[in-house]
Amino acid sequence: MNNALGRLLHPRSVAVIGASDDALRIGGRPIAYMRSQGYQGRLLPVNPNWPQIQGLPAFASVAALPETPDVAIVAVAAKLAPQVVADLGARGTAAAIVFSAGFAEMGEEGTQLQQRMLDAARASGIRLLGPNSLGVLNPRIGFYGSFTSVVEMGFPGAGRVGIASQSGAYGSHILGLAREFGIGVSSCVMSGNECDISLGELVHAFVEDGDTDVITVYSEGIRDGDRLLAALEAARHARKPVVMMKVGTSAVGSAAAQSHTASIAGNDAVTDAVLAEFGVVRARSTEHMLDVARLATRRIYPANNTLGVITVSGGAGVIVSDAAETAGLPMPEMPAAAQKHLKELIPFAAPRNPVDCTAQFMNDLSIAGRFTEAVVDEGGYQSVLGFFTYTVGADSIAEGLRAQLKAVRDKHPDRLFVLSILASKERVRQYEDDGFTVFEDPARAVAAIEAMGRFGQAFARERALLPPPVPPVALPATTPSEAEAKRVLAEAGIAVAPERACATAADAVAAAQALGFPVVMKILSPDILHKSEIGGVLLNVASAGAVGDGFATLMERAKQAAPEARIEGVLVARQLFGGVECILGIQRDPVFGPVAMFGLGGIFVEVMKDVVLRRCPFGEDVAEQMIRAIQGAPLLLGARGKPPADVKALAAMLSRLSVFAHQAGPSLQSIDLNPVFALPEGQGAYAADAVIEVAP
Amino acid sequence: MNNALGRLLHPRSVAVIGASDDALRIGGRPIAYMRSQGYQGRLLPVNPNWPQIQGLPAFASVAALPETPDVAIVAVAAKLAPQVVADLGARGTAAAIVFSAGFAEMGEEGTQLQQRMLDAARASGIRLLGPNSLGVLNPRIGFYGSFTSVVEMGFPGAGRVGIASQSGAYGSHILGLAREFGIGVSSCVMSGNECDISLGELVHAFVEDGDTDVITVYSEGIRDGDRLLAALEAARHARKPVVMMKVGTSAVGSAAAQSHTASIAGNDAVTDAVLAEFGVVRARSTEHMLDVARLATRRIYPANNTLGVITVSGGAGVIVSDAAETAGLPMPEMPAAAQKHLKELIPFAAPRNPVDCTAQFMNDLSIAGRFTEAVVDEGGYQSVLGFFTYTVGADSIAEGLRAQLKAVRDKHPDRLFVLSILASKERVRQYEDDGFTVFEDPARAVAAIEAMGRFGQAFARERALLPPPVPPVALPATTPSEAEAKRVLAEAGIAVAPERACATAADAVAAAQALGFPVVMKILSPDILHKSEIGGVLLNVASAGAVGDGFATLMERAKQAAPEARIEGVLVARQLFGGVECILGIQRDPVFGPVAMFGLGGIFVEVMKDVVLRRCPFGEDVAEQMIRAIQGAPLLLGARGKPPADVKALAAMLSRLSVFAHQAGPSLQSIDLNPVFALPEGQGAYAADAVIEVAP
Repeated sequence: MNNALGRLLHPRSVAVIGASDDALRIGGRPIAYMRSQGYQGRLLPVNPNWPQIQGLPAFASVAALPETPDVAIVAVAAKLAPQVVADLGARGTAAAIVFSAGFAEMGEEGTQLQQRMLDAARASGIRLLGPNSLGVLNPRIGFYGSFTSVVEMGFPGAGRVGIASQSGAYGSHILGLAREFGIGVSSCVMSGNECDISLGELVHAFVEDGDTDVITVYSEGIRDGDRLLAALEAARHARKPVVMMKVGTSAVGSAAAQSHTASIAGNDAVTDAVLAEFGVVRARSTEHMLDVARLATRRIYPANNTLGVITVSGGAGVIVSDAAETAGLPMPEMPAAAQKHLKELIPFAAPRNPVDCTAQFMNDLSIAGRFTEAVVDEGGYQSVLGFFTYTVGADSIAEGLRAQLKAVRDKHPDRLFVLSILASKERVRQYEDDGFTVFEDPARAVAAIEAMGRFGQAFARERALLPPPVPPVALPATTPSEAEAKRVLAEAGIAVAPERACATAADAVAAAQALGFPVVMKILSPDILHKSEIGGVLLNVASAGAVGDGFATLMERAKQAAPEARIEGVLVARQLFGGVECILGIQRDPVFGPVAMFGLGGIFVEVMKDVVLRRCPFGEDVAEQMIRAIQGAPLLLGARGKPPADVKALAAMLSRLSVFAHQAGPSLQSIDLNPVFALPEGQGAYAADAVIEVAP
Repeated sequence: MNNALGRLLHPRSVAVIGASDDALRIGGRPIAYMRSQGYQGRLLPVNPNWPQIQGLPAFASVAALPETPDVAIVAVAAKLAPQVVADLGARGTAAAIVFSAGFAEMGEEGTQLQQRMLDAARASGIRLLGPNSLGVLNPRIGFYGSFTSVVEMGFPGAGRVGIASQSGAYGSHILGLAREFGIGVSSCVMSGNECDISLGELVHAFVEDGDTDVITVYSEGIRDGDRLLAALEAARHARKPVVMMKVGTSAVGSAAAQSHTASIAGNDAVTDAVLAEFGVVRARSTEHMLDVARLATRRIYPANNTLGVITVSGGAGVIVSDAAETAGLPMPEMPAAAQKHLKELIPFAAPRNPVDCTAQFMNDLSIAGRFTEAVVDEGGYQSVLGFFTYTVGADSIAEGLRAQLKAVRDKHPDRLFVLSILASKERVRQYEDDGFTVFEDPARAVAAIEAMGRFGQAFARERALLPPPVPPVALPATTPSEAEAKRVLAEAGIAVAPERACATAADAVAAAQALGFPVVMKILSPDILHKSEIGGVLLNVASAGAVGDGFATLMERAKQAAPEARIEGVLVARQLFGGVECILGIQRDPVFGPVAMFGLGGIFVEVMKDVVLRRCPFGEDVAEQMIRAIQGAPLLLGARGKPPADVKALAAMLSRLSVFAHQAGPSLQSIDLNPVFALPEGQGAYAADAVIEVAP
């Protein structure tokens, strides 16, 4: 990796601008850290007032440096930083880490200063990390381009887990915990204000970094959706697992707040859907993130994960089974022959899975080995969890058990082996060295094992083919009326209920007679989005006379409720019966672009929040998976004696809607198809109402 | 505590029957442990073959003991145990801990042996723990009536947390983790086969134990529902929090499996409901249990818990807010005046809550003190969480911050103070000694804080008054027909839809004319429980002619589908319109007796599993809380422009049903009222169908 971000993680030389002789000041800490940790590159302090800094020769200015540093640390007052960056750029430095604070985080004036600094960088091509960044550290080469004080508790161990954090304080917190968890770090980068280098680029840098196997990400707000997604796809392709903690919910675009879809599905649910799409495991807590990262360093990612459990306590077996069920990790039974064979070894063993070898193994340690071998070999599980708890804490047991387990482990290098034991740090390290990952809490072990399977599934997936395009349709320049919205959607191949726009009562009667009674009548106006709220919808209109009266009623109601609205007439549609009511929607996410939503109509969406989301566009296969994923799916598949609905037609509609939204570009704010009637199998699905919102 | 269970936890003298000179054998471990831990009572080894055991004088038999021991450990072969127990009983020993295995866990023969031993105990009144028990330990007095090898990793610390575990292996696992978590133990008891002393009695013993403040319970299957509930109520009354890990799901009685209610609500959900009723916190994992127990030792249980957060990282603030929202722990905003005042101290502080004092505090530690004081005093939060992460790891910060925080802590002894910090063990201990409970992970801290509020609420609750009885109604001896079931329920004050049982077509026509059309007609037979499955229900029967035809149709269908069934005629009921369909049910839980279920009708229960459960009996206030607790409650309260339903009438029905089920006694298996129509407010709620199952 010889590009700027590669240099940022692996600099051969580092200048510190604003270097301090005081090892506790921010311009002094990096130098002190690197000296204590044996940084092998060249360290070049810059300070006009001192000939020496912490025992190293210092230089008066960037211009005075004897060589061009790969990376420079900028630890000067904010107002001086733009000039320093310009000077570094002129020297050809690849990247600068800007510690200095007092930029965009401090209001308007700081924002302008930050822009000036960025302009200076762009002029020469030097890349900027920060400002307001706690920096970068690479324990593998002793590079500490950081002033984080977390290292006062001990420097991180070197390893193969990369950490990218937007927060310096929380990034350091993670670093401190990683050390306690025994996790070795390749590099840790804290991105600060992200005026230039963004989180997505950092993830990409870790994908390309030969020293990094596992990528952990802490994010408070994603700014570069496209770049991040490209990095996640690259990580998937490179078989590097990404585990991400994304806290809070980003602000929803003000335009989106109007849409039905946006108000139902929070922005956070969009993040969930997008991360799941790329096989990223979203961490529920810092511990969860580090548990997953630690196990992931074994680089065993079973695409068809199953869990076999060997236990010395029935209770622990139940805990593991409960946790596996919650996590959705399958625990198939042992084959009947294997069960029989284990019963012969110990009559009172429980041989199904969890396999309980009982405390008997303490009298004959080979039992533990034979039972474990049976689980791995005869059971054929991809992942194996052994619960031996404190029994290995006793020296009398520990050595013998270790030999038994190691023999099985060595014979099956492709399997994921996890132990739940309580023992001294030294003893745990021995088991870890033998190829077992150790968790004290069996439930946490299960959660981590489940994550490995999700990585494996994502890695095994073919790159999704783009779905076929829909006919190109021009989006109206402003939010269209219902009839116009439906016309546009119909052109894109989305089935709408048969209907006609009618300017007069006579037109409406003729339309109803042509469509067949009963009909639905709706006021037609580009200025009235939520018609039912003003009484603008009439259902079950069953005769020509009623249609005539209905026309007058709707005109009167519209005039009363919205005197300024442009009224184009009335929409007459055939009333659909016998289908399942659904909602299909699109909302434009400010970070990830158009996102599709599917749910069952009415209360299911509004009260039960039973919806599924997916970034656009996607094909019919994905659409069908979405439809089957909602909790209320049995209603579509024929619950309670009703005929199954036309799920294929519904999936086609959802997929086309997603492609339409993708093609429509950024002026499309939202679409609500509500209700959509999914008729019985073979009879299709039709949108009975449609709202398209276009950005002004 | 001078009763047998009190002696079991605090024996003044202990005999070991089957004592061994080998400190690694099960008859040798307790002696070795007690000697190494300085047990102050008298230790009396019994072994006919040795004059001395581990340096102590040994006695040849129970009869030869120089005094009556408070407690005896029985570590002899199973077949000898009944005689040993008889001998101990004859001496007047209060309780025996039976280590020996080979009893009920080993099949029929062992079960008989266990019964013989129990008979021997009952004859003299000696109480038995076990058999197959890993024993009892009380680190406060160095009493180790246990052969658990977990102590080889270190003996538990003495403290005020009691541990009651049904599993020896998992109990020891908990003990090992408790030591790592720095939790001091009052006593730990592992109950094994529970032939005599049950989990409920152990919980009760901890309620009465003056050395125990907090009770932790690990259960694999509750055998003594009534006793456990009495103990939990006593714990609540004594303000002793109980945190319980209940794994797996107990077997559902085979009779209950027939009932609709039982098939919807799993047995585990019953456990959830019962534990919540008593304010027991159900632990999701061992770590969760120990987190809660550790914080609970502070004995601060806020009945109206609110969380104020002081942080040095915006990101951590978001993590805490996310976790608090998930847990349902309120985080109200700081008062406006306090926010203004904090903004004056640091212009870029975030003063709402979480209150972010930013890294500025590192330059002036008094800022941390003033901000924390503001959160506690001006914010008035019951619980306060400070996120200072690794900053306290630096000696330069740690001492000063400690003084600042301690001053606030000392001024407000009634508040719960939790810190999320990363520091050395010694440093953490200092903060703990100052009155702060320390969690590394802020999300785990929030979960534990939330639990303290649940304890506080439960402790503050008045003992629930028993609801008024319903008129005593004799339950039929066998499962009654629908008409009979409704008659019984109506007598108990439960409103059923107006209806008449009709033996002939002419009766049916007359009944329909009296009730008013349209009517519902249903086949009436004690042998046909699920009428709609055989086409035995006709809806919307709208004329006298149609009633006559319907009668014939139903008779014909019943004969075809169930030729053996006793047919009593047809039930004619007025058809109800305009209400919300609900389901009310009762299932008899094998452990906790009758449990009531409430949910919305149809798909809400079957597909969405949106139900709430509660042990019977309960009053109308509780019933109304249940109704409002389901996810679909907005449908009853007037969602989507519909009139609100008569929730009061529904609550009255649910409460009366619970009282009826309670009064009916154990032969009542289940009741399904499905559907119940909750009509608009003021118009009542009526059961349109009723099934009562009676045990044969």
